[in-house]
Formats: sequence, structure tokens, C-alpha cells
Amino acid sequence: MTFELTILGSSSAVPTSKRNLTAHVLNVHERFFLIDCGEGTQIQLRRNKIRFGKINHIFISHLHGDHIFGLFGLISTFNLLNRDKNLHIYAHSELENILKRHIEYFERNLSFEIIYHHINPKLNETIFEDSKLTVETIPLKHRIPCCGFLFKEKPHLKNIKKNFIEKYAIPIAQIQKIKEGDDFVTESGKIIPNAEITLPQFKQRSYAYCTDTAYYEKIIPIINNVDLLFHESTYANNLKKQAKETFHSTAEQAATIAKKANAGKLLIGHFSARYKDIADLINEARSVFENTIAAEDGEKYEIPLTR
Amino acid sequence: MTFELTILGSSSAVPTSKRNLTAHVLNVHERFFLIDCGEGTQIQLRRNKIRFGKINHIFISHLHGDHIFGLFGLISTFNLLNRDKNLHIYAHSELENILKRHIEYFERNLSFEIIYHHINPKLNETIFEDSKLTVETIPLKHRIPCCGFLFKEKPHLKNIKKNFIEKYAIPIAQIQKIKEGDDFVTESGKIIPNAEITLPQFKQRSYAYCTDTAYYEKIIPIINNVDLLFHESTYANNLKKQAKETFHSTAEQAATIAKKANAGKLLIGHFSARYKDIADLINEARSVFENTIAAEDGEKYEIPLTR
Repeated sequence: MTFELTILGSSSAVPTSKRNLTAHVLNVHERFFLIDCGEGTQIQLRRNKIRFGKINHIFISHLHGDHIFGLFGLISTFNLLNRDKNLHIYAHSELENILKRHIEYFERNLSFEIIYHHINPKLNETIFEDSKLTVETIPLKHRIPCCGFLFKEKPHLKNIKKNFIEKYAIPIAQIQKIKEGDDFVTESGKIIPNAEITLPQFKQRSYAYCTDTAYYEKIIPIINNVDLLFHESTYANNLKKQAKETFHSTAEQAATIAKKANAGKLLIGHFSARYKDIADLINEARSVFENTIAAEDGEKYEIPLTR
Repeated sequence: MTFELTILGSSSAVPTSKRNLTAHVLNVHERFFLIDCGEGTQIQLRRNKIRFGKINHIFISHLHGDHIFGLFGLISTFNLLNRDKNLHIYAHSELENILKRHIEYFERNLSFEIIYHHINPKLNETIFEDSKLTVETIPLKHRIPCCGFLFKEKPHLKNIKKNFIEKYAIPIAQIQKIKEGDDFVTESGKIIPNAEITLPQFKQRSYAYCTDTAYYEKIIPIINNVDLLFHESTYANNLKKQAKETFHSTAEQAATIAKKANAGKLLIGHFSARYKDIADLINEARSVFENTIAAEDGEKYEIPLTR
């Protein structure tokens, strides 16, 4: 039951020799969700051995080039490889126009279907749901409409303590109900409380992706208690003015959000190309929120199961 | 007086973890010419330490995505870095429409001007000329209009043998004329033949870029005696039929062209992603044309000065 993030690109709008343009992949129980798709994403997927066929859902935060220009090549490659599975893209409605125009010119006879899911970046709402996971939009504050995404596991079922299945000869039909929380009633009518025969549930794990944004406290109630928070840190705090003007954040601001939201861990990234060394950004964030790490291309960050 | 090619990408349409999409840079006397611009070119330029400001001329062979999708991000980055120098793009006229439409949406207020030079891929003609170099189109045979490019140094001036400048007290004003081939007439009227006081000229160096194309003998007279020939070798010869159907070439066909054109050296590339190991392609080409090497991303190939 994996819950693991892979960073494909950690630069801001101008890439460097070591940092590619923005893209993350979240693996939730072997479902792979691509989050943003900067130029070079298809190559980074290959380098990180994430199979193209696993990518069925793409979430796009906003329509700046450094977050979407990789879609053109990725779609082209999917087509060359004769993909047949539907590809779901969750983005501002305008992306559909852009991609349709593009595909019409470059990719006649697309071998697969693209299902466009229009999202409203101003709202906090659930835009995806399956048996294991929900995805919510997180309205952000940027120069153009922009939202983050909160990926949250659905509640885990309880595990029945092994010896009780045999001890009480629990019928298979009832196992599911007990996992969902029901007490068990024996043939003689005795009630065995659920807590007595089950282990505590695994905690629901969650990942919040917040880029690009100015310091914006309105996101705090949405991401409250998130296990792993990615928050952009384009600048250090001595460029706070520039951050404000360009609707980006400093490392200190990212850490302040993490602290106020009681995040488990803060992952900073989307670094300006001016920072060859990001030690200062890490230190700045840690002075506010100790449990901070910095995104590096190709690194994986797993959230382990805990009870 | 450098004449050096850098390979930024050597894959065909689907990139691999080791081969980026097509782009070459030719450095001629510290002028840098970008040839094709597949996705990821800006990142490859950074990795290979080729400064963005050095790129003023871009030559585009044809309008398939794997040769142009890097333009979007490159233009965006130039704009973010407040480039002010003109950018010259030599391509089929349709590219102007594509880029203008794209720029209008994504890059309002471009900080620099793009000068579009429309080329006719069906003709062999000079499309660029400066004091050191000419660039000619090479009509190729592909599914859509496509041409290669022949980069050719202009004739070098002769070098005057050092001791003769002092021996005859040659006035500075006459040095240029002697370098251009004139004889020298002494004050007493004695004629010193040019050959006696000059070294032979350096040979003009040349590079031909031929991708994407089926086997096409009509290019031979255009590239005849070229020093370095890049010819695509998407497939090995056992997939000759597939090469023909997709208007690509095999390694054997590339070598046959090199042999018939009396090329100095053959550089094969644009390899299908199916070839994890390209040893077979190299061997196949060498069995026809011994002096064959295979393109590798980040490698440089210099053509030295010879007399």
C-alpha cells in the first residue's frame, strides 16, 4: 500500500542543469498521478522508470508554460506508442482549447481519448474520487488562476487480529463488516466489541501540492494536518518583495504555512535558478518549521503506514 | 577558429532515459547555430554549458513535434531572462503561424524580436551567409516537407610566412591583398609570387545535417566531399521495409550515402528507442563506410583545421 511521491522537476520557470521544470508523480497503491507537466517530463518519467502506461490521470495547477509544456511531447509519445487507454486531464477549461488546437495540428488520429475534467481553481472541491483516494483542489494566489491539489487516502479498513477469526469461527461474509467497524455477535448472541478483535486502523495518508502561490493563509484549513506538504519556495526571505510582486513565496513563508497547518513534513521546491546552493533556503525554512526537506529531481519521498 | 558540433539529443521521436530529442549545436568561430529544437533543448544547452545568449540562429528541418517542441520553452526562458537580441529562425513558413499563435497566448510582451526566415525545403539554396559561413538547404524525402542543412566555411585567407613580412618590409596595407592571393611587388619592381611567401590556405570545413529522410540519392551532389555528415539511422537494415514506410533510413543506407558522397566522416543518430545498444547499427554502417561514429548526447565532434 504505497504512498510515495517522486520529484521529476524542482526548478521554477527557468530550468538549470540539475533541476528540471515542474512535475511530480504520486504513487498511491500503484496508481500513478502526474501533477503538472513541465518541459522534459516524459524524459524524467523514463529516467525514473515510471512506465508511461501507468499514467492515466494528470492534474494541472495552472497554465503557465513551465507547468504544461511537457504535455505536448508526452501526448505525442503516447500516440507514437499506440496508447489506447483514456487519459484524464484535470485542469482549467482553457487547457482543453490549447491542447485540442495543438493536437489537431500535430497529432491527427490520436490513438487514445483524452477526457478533460474542467476544474475551478477558485474553489476547494473534490475533483477525483476512487475506492482508495480523493483529490481536492486548493485555491492558491497567483498571477493567473491557479490551484494546488490535496491527495488524501480514504479511511483504511480495520485489520482483524488473526487469532480471533479462528477463535470465533467468524464467517467470511462478516469479515468485511467487522473491518468496517461492526461488532461481532456470536451464535450464542454474545456481543464481542469491535475494538477487542481488531487492530486500530492505519491512518489516512495525505499529500498537499501547493505551487505557484504567494503567501496565502486561506489554504491552511484545507491542508490542516497534512502528512507531506509541498510548498513552493521560489525565493529566500531577503527577496520577499520580489516574491510578493511575482505572486511567489519565500522559504520562510512556506515554513510558516507548514507550521500553522500543523503539517507532518514540509518539502520545499520550485527554486529560482539564481540559487546554485539551496542550503540557505533550507535553513531559513527550518528556523520556522524544523521538519523541512528540499526537493531534488529524481528523489522519492514515502509516507509510511502508521496506526 | 573552432568548427565543432555538440549533440544535444540523439533519439528519434520517442526519447529514452539516455537520449534526448533531436537538437544539434554547431560552433563556427564562436558563432553558435542551433539545429532543430526537440523537447528539453534548453535543459541540454544548460548541461552542455552553451550560453543562451550565444544562440541567435535556429534552423528547423521540419515541423514534427520531436524537432520543434523545445522552441516553446526556449522562447519562454529567453523572455524570462529579458533577452533583447533578435532571434533568427529559419524554417518552413508554417512555423511562424504556430509560434505566433503560441506566443500570443503564453508570452505577451516578448522582450526580443523573432525574425522568421521562410525556407523552401524543396530547394537547395543558400539561406544564410555571413563573413565566415554559408548555410544551404538540402531537400530530403520525408512524410512532410523536410530539409537538411549544409554548413560550409567560406575560403580561409592565406597566411603569410612570418619571415617574409620583415624580409620584404611588406606594408600593412598590402598584407590583406597577399592573404587574398595577390603576388607582392617590391619597391624595385621585382615580383614575388604569392605561393612563395604564403602558406597554403586552410581547407574550408563543412558539416551536413540530414534528418529525417528516407534513402535519397539526390542529396549526394549537394553534400559531396563534406567533412562531417550527420545522417539519420533510425533503424537497422533488417527493418528496411519499416524505414521505407516511415520515410526514415537504416544505418546501412546512411553509410551508403556517406560513401557515395565521399564524406570525411559519418555520424549516425536519430536512433529508434528500440535500440538499447547501438553496436549493431555502428557495425552495419562501418561494413559500408568505415569512418562511422554514433551520436551520443553531450558529445562534441570537432573538425580540425587542415591545409
